[in-house]
Amino acid sequence: MATTNPSPDFSKGGGLLPAIAQDAKTGDVLMLAYMNAESYAETLASGRAVYYSRSRNNLWRKGEESGHVQEVKAIFFDCDADTILLKVHQIGGAACHEGYASCFFRQVTPEGLKVIATRVFDPNEVYKKK
Amino acid sequence: MATTNPSPDFSKGGGLLPAIAQDAKTGDVLMLAYMNAESYAETLASGRAVYYSRSRNNLWRKGEESGHVQEVKAIFFDCDADTILLKVHQIGGAACHEGYASCFFRQVTPEGLKVIATRVFDPNEVYKKK
Repeated sequence: MATTNPSPDFSKGGGLLPAIAQDAKTGDVLMLAYMNAESYAETLASGRAVYYSRSRNNLWRKGEESGHVQEVKAIFFDCDADTILLKVHQIGGAACHEGYASCFFRQVTPEGLKVIATRVFDPNEVYKKK
Repeated sequence: MATTNPSPDFSKGGGLLPAIAQDAKTGDVLMLAYMNAESYAETLASGRAVYYSRSRNNLWRKGEESGHVQEVKAIFFDCDADTILLKVHQIGGAACHEGYASCFFRQVTPEGLKVIATRVFDPNEVYKKK
């Protein structure tokens, strides 16, 4: 019987688990970030992706600054319950802080790294750098 | 100018970076595992996904036991060069050791975890448990 409050196993990975965001419509992998139990709970409650920033050591409500939030359409666990997959609708069309739809905009080729996407927005405009 | 030998930044993450395997044709996210510099180099050289097993502390040539190797069709880095995305052709049709095409075969629903896929193979047959 299914448990009513299934949770990833946050006892692994020092309390931080990788979370993959995938575009719910196109299937493109947009980014990978990390979640702790608190960010996972807030994601479930709010319906928006909330990660944990390892550099800032606090909750990272994706899009809080840019307005480019991720509406969560579905959540999956992997077999070991130590990776989370979110299917999302990315507001603004770009998940990457560099202005690309996906953070994976560079492909490894025999000639070197090749940018295989075009920018959706200019990061200097969206983040209003001072 | 592109560098001729681009590499993810293995100085991050204690030398282990998450690597996402995505089905090159369907776009389904199949699994997440980890790579160190050695497994990444062998992946590039062999054209097959080679991970680093955190539980066994050694190289994990995916499919070595089951024959279900992953042929690598394309490799991408994310913006921070600390996550790898592989587009693969999964031999045998299942990436998950539990016999599902994807490790993400369980969805979080209000009623609990729900299995949303059917098994491609019986793990007891493929791994010939003694």
